[in-house]
Amino acid sequence: MERDNLTMLVDFYELTMGNGYFRQGLENQIAYFDLFFRKIPENGGVALCAGLGPFIDYVQNLKFTEDDLAFLQKKGFDERFIDYLRNWKFSCDIWAVPEGTPIFPGEPIMTVRGPVIQAQFIETMALLLFNHQSLIATKASRIVRAAQGRPVMEFGSRRAHGASAAIYGARSAYIGGCCGTACANCEPDYGIPALGTMAHSWVQLFDTEYEAFKAYAQTYSDNCVLLVDTYDTLKSGIPNAIRIFDELKPAKKGIRIDSGDITYLTKKARKMLDDAGHPDATIVISNSLDEYIIKDILLQGACIDSFGVGERLITSKAEPVFGGVYKLCAVEKEDGTIIPKIKISNNIEKVTNPGYKKVYRLFDKDTGYAFGDYMCLADEPVPGEENLKAVSTTSAKKFKELYNYEAKPLLQEIYRGGELVYEQPDLAAIRKNRESCLEHIWEECLRFENPHIYNVYLSMKLYDLKNELLGNNR
Amino acid sequence: MERDNLTMLVDFYELTMGNGYFRQGLENQIAYFDLFFRKIPENGGVALCAGLGPFIDYVQNLKFTEDDLAFLQKKGFDERFIDYLRNWKFSCDIWAVPEGTPIFPGEPIMTVRGPVIQAQFIETMALLLFNHQSLIATKASRIVRAAQGRPVMEFGSRRAHGASAAIYGARSAYIGGCCGTACANCEPDYGIPALGTMAHSWVQLFDTEYEAFKAYAQTYSDNCVLLVDTYDTLKSGIPNAIRIFDELKPAKKGIRIDSGDITYLTKKARKMLDDAGHPDATIVISNSLDEYIIKDILLQGACIDSFGVGERLITSKAEPVFGGVYKLCAVEKEDGTIIPKIKISNNIEKVTNPGYKKVYRLFDKDTGYAFGDYMCLADEPVPGEENLKAVSTTSAKKFKELYNYEAKPLLQEIYRGGELVYEQPDLAAIRKNRESCLEHIWEECLRFENPHIYNVYLSMKLYDLKNELLGNNR
Repeated sequence: MERDNLTMLVDFYELTMGNGYFRQGLENQIAYFDLFFRKIPENGGVALCAGLGPFIDYVQNLKFTEDDLAFLQKKGFDERFIDYLRNWKFSCDIWAVPEGTPIFPGEPIMTVRGPVIQAQFIETMALLLFNHQSLIATKASRIVRAAQGRPVMEFGSRRAHGASAAIYGARSAYIGGCCGTACANCEPDYGIPALGTMAHSWVQLFDTEYEAFKAYAQTYSDNCVLLVDTYDTLKSGIPNAIRIFDELKPAKKGIRIDSGDITYLTKKARKMLDDAGHPDATIVISNSLDEYIIKDILLQGACIDSFGVGERLITSKAEPVFGGVYKLCAVEKEDGTIIPKIKISNNIEKVTNPGYKKVYRLFDKDTGYAFGDYMCLADEPVPGEENLKAVSTTSAKKFKELYNYEAKPLLQEIYRGGELVYEQPDLAAIRKNRESCLEHIWEECLRFENPHIYNVYLSMKLYDLKNELLGNNR
Repeated sequence: MERDNLTMLVDFYELTMGNGYFRQGLENQIAYFDLFFRKIPENGGVALCAGLGPFIDYVQNLKFTEDDLAFLQKKGFDERFIDYLRNWKFSCDIWAVPEGTPIFPGEPIMTVRGPVIQAQFIETMALLLFNHQSLIATKASRIVRAAQGRPVMEFGSRRAHGASAAIYGARSAYIGGCCGTACANCEPDYGIPALGTMAHSWVQLFDTEYEAFKAYAQTYSDNCVLLVDTYDTLKSGIPNAIRIFDELKPAKKGIRIDSGDITYLTKKARKMLDDAGHPDATIVISNSLDEYIIKDILLQGACIDSFGVGERLITSKAEPVFGGVYKLCAVEKEDGTIIPKIKISNNIEKVTNPGYKKVYRLFDKDTGYAFGDYMCLADEPVPGEENLKAVSTTSAKKFKELYNYEAKPLLQEIYRGGELVYEQPDLAAIRKNRESCLEHIWEECLRFENPHIYNVYLSMKLYDLKNELLGNNR
């Protein structure tokens, strides 16, 4: 039912332009594009990058079918352009930020160099995949932080924006720190633990709640989590659960509450379970949760062992858009000279950083913490021992001297001349990357309210170039 | 790259329960489920139903692969259950609301009757498809209304939550009233007009804006829409566009503005184009638009011929969740007796309507306008000439007498004993359905602010049953 080939999932203007480049004899013009974003969702201090793995899958599988090409012919595109697509041979260089890495506004998280017709074509899916998956990874990491070590499961498939939103949303949530998902296919396909016990319908189907619980406990004595809010949580659900735990003695046991006043109910539930001799029975909560509610109910002393988080995670409800853009930053002449390009705008925040650039994350040599990212032109020397003069894009004091740092490149080489040269890490390694990266981010940047704004610096040379180009077009 | 078989895109608990039903000898237990929602997004007065077509595709393609079954075996499920899935033969009855039809809180938009193991299994995808697609169709119809007859194009793929969100989002937006999409594959796959001209990168790639426009106009003289905000809309973009229109005389021509103060810029642009002798040059606008901004700028006199709407449509940004749920409402004994079931809750709005139900839309015989939906038990007589006593779920005056109505059933028969008996309309027919349905909805229900609340009524018999069941569980 889903299109198995996503080659034609592309904004139509990529095709219009591709055909136009051909007409103009520009099909081999080398261009540079940056993918970057302008604002961290929910005024957060840190975003997490995700989407690279699926993006590589997309590029590897790019192929136009004869049906696709027949459609383009019908739309009036030139035969030469259609032939080019028929014989599509990807030849771009791509650098990108590995999944699970913290990223910040304004810096490239992907740079593409190659024939403009190709580098332009992949814009739509590059943005779609990075935007969606970084959005969910970022949201998940916030929710997981709020849970303070308690496991968080992703439960959102039914509210996801389509099948790939469910699947890649679960994958991104796992990258962000969730411990599993309800989405079954994610275990065989990605190795993400798939979890789930019962719906209210199970309880309703039987004549009584007790019988429903008993049937479940007989089937799943190794992991018996009972949903206790179908009729009345405190008066019926929990007493019936306790009766089952007493009678059937399941090896692992717990209850799930999906409605009502969570703080009140979980405190009561904990006491009832403890008093009945079941301090090992866990309490799982689900019901339109997000980081704010979780933080709040934990502050109020709610007794919770783990969380199932659905719609507010899988749609990033509070801010469902990660506004990544993909902008031309340079063209290359036949002799190899790079001509930087800028996009000016009546909206100041929409002015781009020109040129082919590199980004370094700077770690304080004493503390090990990252204190800023440094963006410079690719032909500038790699930052080493020397003090760096730089321009802050975020703080009122514009010109800064950076010292006592260790600089690590943020982007990895992914494609060289169209060949995949990056070894894709598995999800366990991506999760490890997220974990170790976040260990080097100041806690002040991780707050939900008024986080410290992480510095993104431009090199003096890049800053001067930008001003020069702005002047040129005044 | 995308899973081509979505059978295993299912909440894990559907499997846990399925296996459990088997263990309990309940695999052939007939159950009834209702899919319904509780609240119209953004406090709107009307939601539009979408998702049925893709849902039918899903059901038709349900099939477990040996890999899927091997995974389930590894997870410890019973061989008999796995065999059942291996030989999956769908046998449910399904009734559902056709796409493009207005729907309201509390009423079933789909009812499924069949073996509980099957009727339960399809929950996840039924919700995922209806929730996502009704969300976007509803949002699109709001945006299209705000545009007051001006064409609205869907431009959101790059901000969609994954590939299927882009594709089915475009399809749903078209159902809701958009005239086309930027998403290229939607034209060959669904017949939705795919549109698009140029990005800023096209303009940047050339040495000057004039040369970029000229190159484009040479290639696309039949439809030359120039993006004028790469450098300076009023000082550079529009003058260059006018120069091109003068020199190359394209058959159809226009400009697109993607940033800045839209009202101010479009007024200026209109005057500049008119003064230069191009009153036929159209003005297209795109830049984080939604129904509120469109309504506002049109009120201010912005001069706009058509809109491209991206992220706020494709994610339904202001409210990205359509909260449909899927609840057991009855079970059927072997002798055919239907036992109604209810889900009680500490949250009053989460209490369900029990029983196997029918829903009728009531049209005033004089005006032709729909004045309410009437939900009753399936064994009640079809409403005809008689006055109906009914209970309003929405107004303070609870008991009502309904008269002078014509009653039309809201749900259509889709599956009978697992056989598809519904002829799927094409998108043109679905759009026509939306149009003619909305013609019979009072304008007061279509307002964005404080819309009139459309009445949903329960029959007296259904109301009494609900109270009885609530009492039973007190």
